[in-house]
Amino acid sequence: MIGATPQAPAGDCWITHPHHDGSPLYVSEAAPLLGAEVTVWLRVPTALVGGSDVDAVHVRIVPDAEARFVPAVVDADRSTPAETWWRATLTCHNPVTNYRWILTGGPTAYAWVNGTGLHLRDVPDSADFRLVTFEPSAPDWPLDAVVYQVFPDRFARSAAADTRALPDWARPAGWDDPVDLSSPTAVGRQVYGGDLDGIADHLDHLVDLGVDVLYLTPFFPARSNHRYDATSFDAVDPLLGGDDALRRLTAAAHAHGIRVLGDFTTNHTGAGHAWFRAALADPAAPERAFYFIEDDGRYAAWLGIPSLPKLDHASPELRRRMFHDEHGVVRKWLGPDGGLDGWRVDVANMTGRYGGQDLNHEVAREMRVASVAARADALVVGEHTHDYTTDLPGDGWHGVMNYAGFTRPVWTWLTRPEDPPEFLGQPVRVPRLGGELVAETMRDFSARVAWSVLTRSFTLVGSHDTSRVRSLVADDRLVVVAAGLLFTMPGIPMLTYGDEIGLTGHSGEDGRRPMPWDAAGRDPARWDERLHTAYRSLIGVRRESVALRRGGMRWLYAGRDALVYLREAPGETALVHIARDAHPPITLDARLLPGSAAALARFGGGAHRVGDGLRLEASAPSVGIHTWVPTGGG
Amino acid sequence: MIGATPQAPAGDCWITHPHHDGSPLYVSEAAPLLGAEVTVWLRVPTALVGGSDVDAVHVRIVPDAEARFVPAVVDADRSTPAETWWRATLTCHNPVTNYRWILTGGPTAYAWVNGTGLHLRDVPDSADFRLVTFEPSAPDWPLDAVVYQVFPDRFARSAAADTRALPDWARPAGWDDPVDLSSPTAVGRQVYGGDLDGIADHLDHLVDLGVDVLYLTPFFPARSNHRYDATSFDAVDPLLGGDDALRRLTAAAHAHGIRVLGDFTTNHTGAGHAWFRAALADPAAPERAFYFIEDDGRYAAWLGIPSLPKLDHASPELRRRMFHDEHGVVRKWLGPDGGLDGWRVDVANMTGRYGGQDLNHEVAREMRVASVAARADALVVGEHTHDYTTDLPGDGWHGVMNYAGFTRPVWTWLTRPEDPPEFLGQPVRVPRLGGELVAETMRDFSARVAWSVLTRSFTLVGSHDTSRVRSLVADDRLVVVAAGLLFTMPGIPMLTYGDEIGLTGHSGEDGRRPMPWDAAGRDPARWDERLHTAYRSLIGVRRESVALRRGGMRWLYAGRDALVYLREAPGETALVHIARDAHPPITLDARLLPGSAAALARFGGGAHRVGDGLRLEASAPSVGIHTWVPTGGG
Repeated sequence: MIGATPQAPAGDCWITHPHHDGSPLYVSEAAPLLGAEVTVWLRVPTALVGGSDVDAVHVRIVPDAEARFVPAVVDADRSTPAETWWRATLTCHNPVTNYRWILTGGPTAYAWVNGTGLHLRDVPDSADFRLVTFEPSAPDWPLDAVVYQVFPDRFARSAAADTRALPDWARPAGWDDPVDLSSPTAVGRQVYGGDLDGIADHLDHLVDLGVDVLYLTPFFPARSNHRYDATSFDAVDPLLGGDDALRRLTAAAHAHGIRVLGDFTTNHTGAGHAWFRAALADPAAPERAFYFIEDDGRYAAWLGIPSLPKLDHASPELRRRMFHDEHGVVRKWLGPDGGLDGWRVDVANMTGRYGGQDLNHEVAREMRVASVAARADALVVGEHTHDYTTDLPGDGWHGVMNYAGFTRPVWTWLTRPEDPPEFLGQPVRVPRLGGELVAETMRDFSARVAWSVLTRSFTLVGSHDTSRVRSLVADDRLVVVAAGLLFTMPGIPMLTYGDEIGLTGHSGEDGRRPMPWDAAGRDPARWDERLHTAYRSLIGVRRESVALRRGGMRWLYAGRDALVYLREAPGETALVHIARDAHPPITLDARLLPGSAAALARFGGGAHRVGDGLRLEASAPSVGIHTWVPTGGG
Repeated sequence: MIGATPQAPAGDCWITHPHHDGSPLYVSEAAPLLGAEVTVWLRVPTALVGGSDVDAVHVRIVPDAEARFVPAVVDADRSTPAETWWRATLTCHNPVTNYRWILTGGPTAYAWVNGTGLHLRDVPDSADFRLVTFEPSAPDWPLDAVVYQVFPDRFARSAAADTRALPDWARPAGWDDPVDLSSPTAVGRQVYGGDLDGIADHLDHLVDLGVDVLYLTPFFPARSNHRYDATSFDAVDPLLGGDDALRRLTAAAHAHGIRVLGDFTTNHTGAGHAWFRAALADPAAPERAFYFIEDDGRYAAWLGIPSLPKLDHASPELRRRMFHDEHGVVRKWLGPDGGLDGWRVDVANMTGRYGGQDLNHEVAREMRVASVAARADALVVGEHTHDYTTDLPGDGWHGVMNYAGFTRPVWTWLTRPEDPPEFLGQPVRVPRLGGELVAETMRDFSARVAWSVLTRSFTLVGSHDTSRVRSLVADDRLVVVAAGLLFTMPGIPMLTYGDEIGLTGHSGEDGRRPMPWDAAGRDPARWDERLHTAYRSLIGVRRESVALRRGGMRWLYAGRDALVYLREAPGETALVHIARDAHPPITLDARLLPGSAAALARFGGGAHRVGDGLRLEASAPSVGIHTWVPTGGG
């Protein structure tokens, strides 16, 4: 580390490394067409060992899978005494153009730069940068979005909820009753009576918080409170207020500047679904081919759970009803019938995959095509609980729920070691690790998808399927630390209703506690207002900073207890310093951070100029965000 | 490093790491069927920090892309005081079952083991181990094979060669004339007159050397000596002796226990090919669709070279003529017409890829199906000059020419730093690196394909497309070092005719010098008999050692100047110690090498027991191979 003080904690420092990423500062065209020329830039700090002796830089591309080297030239307009910028122009010969830089000359002699950083030996292409030309390109609005996830039964009840009779499977719960965790059956049947009009009644809370997208877990009729066992895709559950309530909610949300996403289970239906009943009743029914049903009546089901029969996407009729038909599931609800702005896709990782069959990529593409046909700027984000990196070439799901590259790394940094959390029922608990490993994990996953995909993936520190963040960590300062990561990293931040007021829960089910409201709209006794203020502030900082929303991602430092990175946009730079605990000061060479003398503390503090250094301090878990307008150096 | 002497060189040591690979010692079934159960084993040395405290081991599999954990149990029959063996049984739910191990408990707490070793954080799946169920499974014989690559114009002339008139494009050269490197045209037209009967006349040389596969670069008629610009796939070039000569050669080779592979350019033809002439002559000709021809007559060509028009595999008729027709190219020459035992596929990485089209995987599958239809144990190996790891799921090419994971790493270790070699015309030269980086590179690529694919890929230290190994390195001891790696690592060793006698050449073209024979069959003045003996010995050691041919690959140590690894088969272990230069002794804890006290030096030496250690010494570039029958511990 250049300029590090003797007390500096051990850690990995990349401030002197060459840097490139897929953001506008480094790539001339975010959504090129096939055949287009795109200019890319690499910054090489002079402080890189031998950086000033680099005598050639090339970009390696791989048109039609054969390596080709494009020479780069020095960009004098961007270069400064502290760093040399190199520029090259690439042609998008294939739909995915993967590329990396190579520096030769100087003491390093041979150094690759790809999405996982600097490599002194040959490495496989999987972490190469990527240009993606698929049309239509992904929507722009998600780059500025903050998403609020709502489990409709638990967010808020409208007055009409009191008038509804419950179906036979449901067990009524009072709003203040505890979640009944006594059995899997009990937990799924407990109905609190939250509904869509209840959400509409509380949009002011979302506006106040600063979120602009509402994601609803399923609203289709089902035989459980989570509704992932849909009995129909043709109607909104009357328990939630029915079709009209959805139209009222989307209209009200739009009037408040809030988009709305639905949740569609392309992987399975409920066993009570009309399609499945038809399939079982008559082997000659067209719906028979929608499922994997053996002659003896056995059928494939999600994780073997009989109430969730798995769909067989080899059926053209299934795909017609889901995707191609303009009145089919996907298009109907994005149209006037529902007013949705996009879909979250349940179990997207497993969809279309079963034994020897793998239609996942086709399903992803068709769902995207259908969604965009219904609404040109629709967003389609897949749930992906595992390594998504090979499932996202860029023409299917716009993004995923980034559990692997964000949620799990954040958990491993912040969780209480004495109580390692469970992740989605897996027997191996999530460990507590130092920041070096956390940063490496984040880089390793994020480097393997195109920037356009990463930035349309949901970052999240929890969901209705996981423990609540407040229950994962030791105190509410660490909830703010988690939120600091959430609202300053690339991706679409998503929080789960109530995270912002400190709702707790030690599992997905336990975390689905009703949002506590009093007659005036909130319940001060049960709202952690310090947290609420922190969330509101962090979201506000993000909304005001183009760098935090749309900037690149440049790691500066990762140590056991601190992470430091830059988000860089053409007109603004943000420096983020996040500490999970007190740590010795970190001093960065401020000469490599042009303009940082004028940095403005946006949130938190602990950054001071000391001579040529920028000194970052933390005496406790904390978030520091500083932004400035760069002077020189691009 | 356990037991390392104070003088031990710095380096990476993995002897105390848990180990698993795809070889028979660790996997119960090399070619399982879909749905099969397969047992896998992991060895965990007790000397691993906390190894004895590991309290649970699971295998993580990912059926239908969702993570699942299979508990492993201790295998008491295999465990010893020095190491614990864990065993688990997996079901091959998908055609590719990727899996990795996780150890929990003990001070390590959370440690994954995949194909690139031990990881203390989450890593993407790309280096997971793999079980592959595609049918028919790959042929078995290549696991024991050693391949000899021959460029037919340059290996040997038969008496009949003197009687043949040369075609118009050819310029005759005397057998002792230098290669004419004055221009690309000149170098391609120079014909020395080697022919297939000439090869048949010298099969005793191959037998004596110990090779059992002859790979012929193209024998189809063309307008160059390399014949990658075929004018027909229907006949053997009369310049090489015609169809009868091929049948004579394959019959003679088979009689000598030698299989023969042909070379097929699926990516392009010559501009003089009958198909291309028909396509140009008549836009309505069926062959028009075989190529990418614009209305204005421009056409796609390999690397833009007009004499090599690129084939368009979107044409069903092209695929019929190449693959499906039993008299088509692939099947005809594997049948009685040619007697071939398989194909090397030219430019396999680019085949079927052009701009927005990517049919590469389909072409690979169809060529494999066609080959196996003609000859059940046919081998199909693709040329791949780049990162092959995503092109080899296991159902297409059986393997590739392993340039990325073997050739380049070997070159980076052994090349003369003052004269870094060119690789396939790339402007960035191949650097010289230490053994740590070399081993990491080899692991990084080899971990990304199934064991069955890796072991059917050609390892090579050069080919007719590259510099000769003798010209890459400083002296002939380093040629033996390269050969030591070639004949002791997983994969099918391939040498290029003449490597074994020290032929030189500073580029692919320059290296295509005629094989020097005298009247008695060899030319002592131009044969390096020390090298020849070393090649013969190394091949002999491999042929005698099931561990070297079919064993796993367990890295023990990689330092700047030395590499040490084990090849382990159920009945035999081989320890390989390769030094590119003198180095301080390396002492390995021999307690972790059961039975090594009885090790037998098969080639070279420099290994001695010192107390509980096995001491490996080298005072110069050298190869040491030691084999033994393990006692206990599997």
